[in-house]
Amino acid sequence: MNFPSKVLEAAIEELAQLPGIGRRTAMRLALHMLKRNATQTLALSDALTKLVNEVRYCKVCFSLSNADVCEICSNGLRNDKLICVVQDIRDVMAIENTGQYRGLYHVLGGLISPMDGVGPAQLTIQPLVTRALDAEEVILALSSTMEGDTTNFYLYKVLRPTEVKVSVIARGIGIGDELEYTDETTLASSISHRVLYADTIAE
Amino acid sequence: MNFPSKVLEAAIEELAQLPGIGRRTAMRLALHMLKRNATQTLALSDALTKLVNEVRYCKVCFSLSNADVCEICSNGLRNDKLICVVQDIRDVMAIENTGQYRGLYHVLGGLISPMDGVGPAQLTIQPLVTRALDAEEVILALSSTMEGDTTNFYLYKVLRPTEVKVSVIARGIGIGDELEYTDETTLASSISHRVLYADTIAE
Repeated sequence: MNFPSKVLEAAIEELAQLPGIGRRTAMRLALHMLKRNATQTLALSDALTKLVNEVRYCKVCFSLSNADVCEICSNGLRNDKLICVVQDIRDVMAIENTGQYRGLYHVLGGLISPMDGVGPAQLTIQPLVTRALDAEEVILALSSTMEGDTTNFYLYKVLRPTEVKVSVIARGIGIGDELEYTDETTLASSISHRVLYADTIAE
Repeated sequence: MNFPSKVLEAAIEELAQLPGIGRRTAMRLALHMLKRNATQTLALSDALTKLVNEVRYCKVCFSLSNADVCEICSNGLRNDKLICVVQDIRDVMAIENTGQYRGLYHVLGGLISPMDGVGPAQLTIQPLVTRALDAEEVILALSSTMEGDTTNFYLYKVLRPTEVKVSVIARGIGIGDELEYTDETTLASSISHRVLYADTIAE
């Protein structure tokens, strides 16, 4: 395509490299930025520069942080004997939004996936093993996919020598889901991991 | 939502202001930028700053340009007696991509739309009238919508005193479309604006 302006072309090229944004969307975004107030686009540009230059990772759990140690890890009121292992920062936010979990996290930074060239060495597994020495329980809260299962099994093997209790989040029918539309594997898991009804009701 | 990092939150806020990008997509984009090489995001940031600071508009046709006068307007091989009026720069690129048009353009910058508060004064209509004095034909190539039709009619009225020939692009069944699935209005337009078959075949 022939672009009438070099700076427009450069902006479109860069925008189109983002996931889910093709050249047509990139063009629409670039033209929108030209139409709106320039200060808004300068603010976006500035925020992105700051994002990559100033973002910090918690030295303990590898979540994003404003300081060396994140607010969750440095919060004395949380249970530091309980570590919830998640794939990335989005999962931390999702679990935090439930308001139900009071332990700490450990962000792996991905899942073991030989197809994508991701092995255990690329993940924060070694620091997890070190942390597990002082913990009582490690909860594996990874996606219920082949990569998630592989990673769960690998973590279980490397954590075994530490004698920490290793648990995995429950897999079953979702709250509000209808039984008839639940797939067989999930339903089977729901049945084999049934719990005592008395344990599920508030007394 | 609780964000673990202020710079992440700022980047997400700015990204979410773009059209078609909600907070969830903004988050996905921001985390992607943190994962990929930082230089790529700095290049994007730089391209956006340049876009709003350095982009220029052609003084003749109001298209985007690298210089005072764009490459199309300054191209001596094009027919400068023929002016194709379009809504925005994307339409210029779409028509250029057909490779069939050898005249010049005039970018209106929008369509007359009282609902959106866009009147003739916000568009580049006055410069178009001035250009029309030296032209032989003005082709109205606007969208076939109510706003497009209103703008066509307004332009026709203001261009009449210049005695330039005012034409409008053909509206009819699209190439490759099936008759049975074409809406009635388009089909009726296709029939009433029929052309001689002999004119449509290469001799």
